[in-house]
Amino acid sequence: MDPNATTPPPTSAGLPDDGLTTRERRLRPALIVNTGEGKGKTTAAMGLALRAWHQGWSIGVFQFIKSGRWVSGERIALETLGAEHQRTGAGGEVCWFATGAGRRWVQDPDAEPAQVDAARNAWQEVKQRLAAQRHRLYVLDEFTYPVNRGWLDLAEVVETLRDRPGVQHLVVTGRAAPPELTEIATTVTEMTKRKHPFDTGQKGQAGIEW
Amino acid sequence: MDPNATTPPPTSAGLPDDGLTTRERRLRPALIVNTGEGKGKTTAAMGLALRAWHQGWSIGVFQFIKSGRWVSGERIALETLGAEHQRTGAGGEVCWFATGAGRRWVQDPDAEPAQVDAARNAWQEVKQRLAAQRHRLYVLDEFTYPVNRGWLDLAEVVETLRDRPGVQHLVVTGRAAPPELTEIATTVTEMTKRKHPFDTGQKGQAGIEW
Repeated sequence: MDPNATTPPPTSAGLPDDGLTTRERRLRPALIVNTGEGKGKTTAAMGLALRAWHQGWSIGVFQFIKSGRWVSGERIALETLGAEHQRTGAGGEVCWFATGAGRRWVQDPDAEPAQVDAARNAWQEVKQRLAAQRHRLYVLDEFTYPVNRGWLDLAEVVETLRDRPGVQHLVVTGRAAPPELTEIATTVTEMTKRKHPFDTGQKGQAGIEW
Repeated sequence: MDPNATTPPPTSAGLPDDGLTTRERRLRPALIVNTGEGKGKTTAAMGLALRAWHQGWSIGVFQFIKSGRWVSGERIALETLGAEHQRTGAGGEVCWFATGAGRRWVQDPDAEPAQVDAARNAWQEVKQRLAAQRHRLYVLDEFTYPVNRGWLDLAEVVETLRDRPGVQHLVVTGRAAPPELTEIATTVTEMTKRKHPFDTGQKGQAGIEW
């Protein structure tokens, strides 16, 4: 049994001599990367969006691969919270962009150009919204795929995210986050697969996988 | 750059010869463990609850350490979805039990008995609800702490979870999940810390950490 099991989560003991006040340190814009082969990258981003919603933050979710024809449970639920914001003023707004073209390109090279266009359009939208400080939290879901495929220019992505104005938080998900991206991140978590249901023939199921 | 970056998520190729039909395999009750030192264990569980809500499932969230006096963003957001279910019939119900006594026992041994009682009461509630098949998804948040501290009997916990009746899904979160628990799990993800904001003096902030 791990003796660490009962220690509390890390706290900010040992503050660096960076000249920031506690308040400034508390408000530092976060760039969170959820990567690795395991499950939980997207669901952790969506769980974070719940916290952001409660703070009344404007939330923009950009799904770079999933197409809008496939509507997930997390989308319906978060859009329900967005509608609640419209109706009662509680929480924050939720803007959802599932502008991908799906995973068809994996089997069918002819489908790749449509996905390339979709990813580049979504990225232009993100860039414009970051420049306009449109949201307080951005979820860039499955963003590492178009970056790693070379559909987006990595140097431009890094510069845009690093130099974003104001206090805009970002969560990026996807396997194999490139080092240039984790370098500028404030938090990097690798979801490591210890046991994956699909490895033992389990089928994906509604309510669990989507 | 990882060549796996653009492969799709694992699919259930290579089905085992276990005599199950595809439908049975799809409906197998899940026991998901989110463990490790990194961030995202609880948020991933809450993101999964969004999918469950969309399926119309009854959801029971049991927070074994957090006390009800500290109301998190994810709680408010998910309870808002539960209220939406009451109001319109959309989604599923959400029952939330934050019955812990907080982390005071870490610094103050005198506070431990209250937390032990709280954890044992919460566990009795979970046991009764599992026996009654009260929920379709259970989130046992920070459950590994009372187990690893010996406040709950590990053998009884394993037997109860393993032998639960019907189709009841569970997500367990917390560091250092014991091997006896991961052994009976269908999915185990370790959230591995690559970079943690508190390590560089970042303070926890609303909307991100709660």
